[in-house]
Amino acid sequence: MGRATTRRPVVRLRGEFETSRPDTVVVEEPLEIRVDGKALAVTMRTPGNDIDLAHGFLLTEGVIAGPEDISVARYCDGVGEDGLNTYNVLDIALAPGVSPPDVGIERNFYTTSSCGVCGKASLDAVRLLTKHSPAEDTSIITSETLSSLPDTLRTHQKIFESTGGLHAAALFDTEGELLVVREDVGRHNAVDKVVGWAVQNSRIPLHGTVLMVSGRASFELAQKSVMAGIPILAAVSAPSSLALDLADESGLTIVGFLRGDGMNIYTRAERVTITHAHATADAVRT
Amino acid sequence: MGRATTRRPVVRLRGEFETSRPDTVVVEEPLEIRVDGKALAVTMRTPGNDIDLAHGFLLTEGVIAGPEDISVARYCDGVGEDGLNTYNVLDIALAPGVSPPDVGIERNFYTTSSCGVCGKASLDAVRLLTKHSPAEDTSIITSETLSSLPDTLRTHQKIFESTGGLHAAALFDTEGELLVVREDVGRHNAVDKVVGWAVQNSRIPLHGTVLMVSGRASFELAQKSVMAGIPILAAVSAPSSLALDLADESGLTIVGFLRGDGMNIYTRAERVTITHAHATADAVRT
Repeated sequence: MGRATTRRPVVRLRGEFETSRPDTVVVEEPLEIRVDGKALAVTMRTPGNDIDLAHGFLLTEGVIAGPEDISVARYCDGVGEDGLNTYNVLDIALAPGVSPPDVGIERNFYTTSSCGVCGKASLDAVRLLTKHSPAEDTSIITSETLSSLPDTLRTHQKIFESTGGLHAAALFDTEGELLVVREDVGRHNAVDKVVGWAVQNSRIPLHGTVLMVSGRASFELAQKSVMAGIPILAAVSAPSSLALDLADESGLTIVGFLRGDGMNIYTRAERVTITHAHATADAVRT
Repeated sequence: MGRATTRRPVVRLRGEFETSRPDTVVVEEPLEIRVDGKALAVTMRTPGNDIDLAHGFLLTEGVIAGPEDISVARYCDGVGEDGLNTYNVLDIALAPGVSPPDVGIERNFYTTSSCGVCGKASLDAVRLLTKHSPAEDTSIITSETLSSLPDTLRTHQKIFESTGGLHAAALFDTEGELLVVREDVGRHNAVDKVVGWAVQNSRIPLHGTVLMVSGRASFELAQKSVMAGIPILAAVSAPSSLALDLADESGLTIVGFLRGDGMNIYTRAERVTITHAHATADAVRT
């Protein structure tokens, strides 16, 4: 698409020095996803890999189970007053027999108009049911391989390099081989683009893989992992309580603060083999 | 509420050392906002200051103009199967004469079921109309004062200190005095809590203030600033293209990469007085 970055004027101050010049900034534009002619969601995203984004979104929302559930995915051919297509609307036609979602689907949960989350426990209120539970996944990864992932991710963050403004998500196998990496202004979009790539390549469920994200491990990202059958979610930053609740219940391994030679393993730690020599809890207080 | 953080078991690896112990993580739970009995939005938020959050959300969505537009805001009194209230649903009653929003309101834009964003320019498709334009705001702030804001913000990020997992937003006056700071797992929620505090204290429009955020300056945060009448949005990280488009059009000053003694001023730079001695563009290439 060539629209992932753009140039804008900027006044730069660095200590005593002031310069005026164009700066590269990341593009953020709305994408409307329509299913069978009905607007389902609008997300603010970085243009590019939009078809992947839609596939990943629909899979992680539980609308589709695989690529065969979508018969057509294409940009709306309408044009604006200037006669140009914005490429900001995707029309998705579901395959015969696939039920469209209720209207009101939101990012990663359904907003109900009756009781909603009032009397329900938090997790019950927002959980989607996965067809690809990672609970029985017997994948093992070494701590050494895990520690190598952030550097590989950073090396492939091309847009971040030039703008400093992007979230990234990448899929690795348990040997640390990179399968795919995507960047977006929205962390959930980056993950949807990765999962949508897998959907389109018939790789769902994503058993035997690690999803690495550049930011935090929120509930939303844990839910997307579980919906795609990913057994390990690794994040540079912290997880949230609800992400850990879902991980506990679903058998997802969550690794947080994966930086340098350190990491925190919060759930299903048996999937991580510790390959460094290590001391016991008594020997260290860091 | 006392629910902003919780403790979870974790296996910590730091180089050769492994420890197992409880770790503090940030709480993330769904909050459903109901207006006149109808579910309007569900947001994943950190519990606390929920009434502020709802006020800020409704103001920045253009539903209310001030505190007088809400007659009652209280937690839903329903209980779950365990007989406990989750405190995750807020019932808002609008004052007589205030129109409830269309259903389908989303975070910071309306999803339309007809043409949507298909033929519209990006900004047109998602823009809300503000009653409190910052365009005519004549506030001035010095670059020195701006440079002091990140340290003040960090000093007041109490939850971040213990969890490493929070976004923060703070409101300052142009002398650098802190008015309010809020933290949340969602960047937009942190801003809504700050704006909601201002709504409840009858400080809208927020002329003469600076909104400082710990992350990026996305479209969503620029829109919330404009809706609240804030003239200056300062961010530790990068802005997006659409945030800058909106800022240009609305007369909002956006400062990005505000760290150390540096900053990038993208729009309405005349609100920033450069107080360090400085060289010209020819003298430095950093």
